[in-house]
Amino acid sequence: MFRILVSLGLSLYAAEPVDLIVSGKHVVTMDGGYRVIDGGAVAVRGERIVAVGARAEIDKAYKARKRIDRPNALITPGLISTHTHAPMSLLRGVADDLRLQEWLEKYIFPAEAKNVTPDFVRAGTNLAVLEMLLSGTTTYTDMYYFEEVIADATAKAGMRGVLGQTIIQFPVPDAKTPAEGLSRTEAFLKQFAGHRLITAAPAPHAIYTNADDTLRASRALANKYGVPLLIHVSETKREFDESKAKRGLTPVAALAKLGVFDGRTVAAHGVWLEDADIGTLAAKKVGDAHCPSSNMKLASGIAPVAKLLKQGVSLGLGPDGPAGSNNDFNLFEEMDLAGKLQKIATMDPETLPARTVVEMATIGGARVLGMEKEIGSIEAGKRADLIAVSLDAPHAYPMFNVYSQLVNALKGSDVTDVVVNGKLLVEQRKALTLDAAKVRLAAERYAGAVRNSVVR
Amino acid sequence: MFRILVSLGLSLYAAEPVDLIVSGKHVVTMDGGYRVIDGGAVAVRGERIVAVGARAEIDKAYKARKRIDRPNALITPGLISTHTHAPMSLLRGVADDLRLQEWLEKYIFPAEAKNVTPDFVRAGTNLAVLEMLLSGTTTYTDMYYFEEVIADATAKAGMRGVLGQTIIQFPVPDAKTPAEGLSRTEAFLKQFAGHRLITAAPAPHAIYTNADDTLRASRALANKYGVPLLIHVSETKREFDESKAKRGLTPVAALAKLGVFDGRTVAAHGVWLEDADIGTLAAKKVGDAHCPSSNMKLASGIAPVAKLLKQGVSLGLGPDGPAGSNNDFNLFEEMDLAGKLQKIATMDPETLPARTVVEMATIGGARVLGMEKEIGSIEAGKRADLIAVSLDAPHAYPMFNVYSQLVNALKGSDVTDVVVNGKLLVEQRKALTLDAAKVRLAAERYAGAVRNSVVR
Repeated sequence: MFRILVSLGLSLYAAEPVDLIVSGKHVVTMDGGYRVIDGGAVAVRGERIVAVGARAEIDKAYKARKRIDRPNALITPGLISTHTHAPMSLLRGVADDLRLQEWLEKYIFPAEAKNVTPDFVRAGTNLAVLEMLLSGTTTYTDMYYFEEVIADATAKAGMRGVLGQTIIQFPVPDAKTPAEGLSRTEAFLKQFAGHRLITAAPAPHAIYTNADDTLRASRALANKYGVPLLIHVSETKREFDESKAKRGLTPVAALAKLGVFDGRTVAAHGVWLEDADIGTLAAKKVGDAHCPSSNMKLASGIAPVAKLLKQGVSLGLGPDGPAGSNNDFNLFEEMDLAGKLQKIATMDPETLPARTVVEMATIGGARVLGMEKEIGSIEAGKRADLIAVSLDAPHAYPMFNVYSQLVNALKGSDVTDVVVNGKLLVEQRKALTLDAAKVRLAAERYAGAVRNSVVR
Repeated sequence: MFRILVSLGLSLYAAEPVDLIVSGKHVVTMDGGYRVIDGGAVAVRGERIVAVGARAEIDKAYKARKRIDRPNALITPGLISTHTHAPMSLLRGVADDLRLQEWLEKYIFPAEAKNVTPDFVRAGTNLAVLEMLLSGTTTYTDMYYFEEVIADATAKAGMRGVLGQTIIQFPVPDAKTPAEGLSRTEAFLKQFAGHRLITAAPAPHAIYTNADDTLRASRALANKYGVPLLIHVSETKREFDESKAKRGLTPVAALAKLGVFDGRTVAAHGVWLEDADIGTLAAKKVGDAHCPSSNMKLASGIAPVAKLLKQGVSLGLGPDGPAGSNNDFNLFEEMDLAGKLQKIATMDPETLPARTVVEMATIGGARVLGMEKEIGSIEAGKRADLIAVSLDAPHAYPMFNVYSQLVNALKGSDVTDVVVNGKLLVEQRKALTLDAAKVRLAAERYAGAVRNSVVR
């Protein structure tokens, strides 16, 4: 009887214990109804959100072990990056103002051949993860070499990643042949199967850098382990023209014909697309990682984002790599650019309004990765991936619309606190799981070697 | 005899007294030889730079009353904004994702009619100046109402400004008629003649919002007082088409024919230009204020920047106003966008390399304003307008090229210290001449009134 009363009392009158409560001026949920809660709060237990609502109600219902109260900040879902190359942080701006193919073939591939080792990759990943976390990215999608090292460093920092082991036809730092690449990939998929933060994935580089057999084998691997396949798709006109000349098909049509899209796929860039290609991406439920900075800086072209959205293709944002195609990992800048680029491309300022852009950086990105049931919005039951964005800086006020402010005025530097999978990784702009001084020291050491290896 | 020895001793062996020494990892001078001094320093006496060189030499030759040593920062010329509307900070993002004419006529002009008073303008200017200084802008070019209040607030904060009093055909908050606008302008030019920080200027809004007589009278005023004339030129296709239909001339050709370019002129935007127009701007030495964010966000068009540079037109950068065309005053973002926009527009990644972009934000902007002998580079004899940009953030390293880093990786938030006219205005990211809390309070008060006056 006593036990029953106590139990009743606890549930009716006393606050339930939770691990964390985060409160802010507005909680921008990005849920199905685009709810924005003024004076809102989020309760977190373990890895998940248990409740979202007005702060007064959350505080009445829950008692937290730890609180993050930011009365002058937006609380938003953590930002989701759908395409990057994290360890290229160590090649930041090493070769600028060049065409993609020249940049890749004359500078990047040779610099990588000379410098990329597991330790290089770890140092670069730590720098990238530090930068991404401090600017509000909580999940990132990667394609590089020694991806198991990237996964280990990412998990150690507590960040979420969909991490693709590169498979490519020519010798690269971690594999002499595509067969070796495929076998490394399978080992990687096994190693991280069921990991709480890491989704290991095969990443055949592109249609023009892989044999058809290798592409098919990559797809088979992804499907065997139930993970997405990551690939660059129709990034440049050269890729598009060569595919048409060689196969009589666009890259999208060729990849579809090869069966590469028969399973969850994240297509990076998607710049050169015919209308039929857009139909194919929609029909095959291929997610598209839009990279406005990279597409502009390398003069690759302008992705038909408005058309893709209209046809129901899932769209996310990616900064691409920082070695010349960007040169950083800042998703606030990708939001800003995504909106502006479509407006000028379509000569219509009503294209891609701010809320649509925020969607691309959050729940849209989650859809691209097939993780929309787990991340991308602030809803009870989902993983607790969220950030606080300060409204203190002079560029942050006045504010008439939260989405406009996020896309057009707020910066990565306004992010003060970052929670991933229920764990606080950044507090008051300080990274808690990475030692910034050590990260810097390691990065600068490798930068010296890179400097010596690149002919300018 | 003793006096002679002492005097000799002082000049030969002892360090000369100066007011300020600023040192950094690299001094990016933007002088005629694009000198970058590793481990450099700048000595300042009064309002001017007295020496630039290696820190060891500067420290030997000069003894400073105050030092700013930033061993892990770039020291660069202060950034120069060639087109904005400072008090529109209070309308930040009030109406987004709209066409220029609709935005202007349905939202901005009515909101201004209801809200703009001298006090509104002062509150908005303080917010704008605070934001500009904290993100590294040391000189800005403005067009608004009650410009004498803007000038007073700007001078009180210690910032440099080329400030244009608006002249326009219809009733506006500070003038019922263009005649009243012209007479206000003349009073303003007299009031600030010879001011050490402020250049007062007439700013007829545009060709489509002024009668020809008013434009001619504005030119006459500018020439009488020896100051530049500021005007919007060929910003939208509508402006271009209407001018052709009405006058049979492009806006540039029409303005040239009216004599508006017969004297120093700062033309804002310059988007819709025929080849002959570019020739006219070059021949008339009209400076062009390129506004990439605004042109993209309002879908106005893409200015032919590469062509303008090739024809020898002076080019600067401007954020335009934050009320929907941007929505902030960050010149680091304008640098980033200027480069990327021209690359994608010309489909050539070699267009507008990073150094050219930095030039537009510094000495190029000074040329646009006709102030290149006074500001825009770090050289002995010039006004001491300079900033320190920290290389501490994870997005700031490694660094392979200073110009690439400034354009593509560094942010306004990396600016730590700002000197204008020899006076330290920002130290360690803290504004010294403006009280941030008071600025915010005043801004939020007016934001409430704006919110109530705009139908959304």
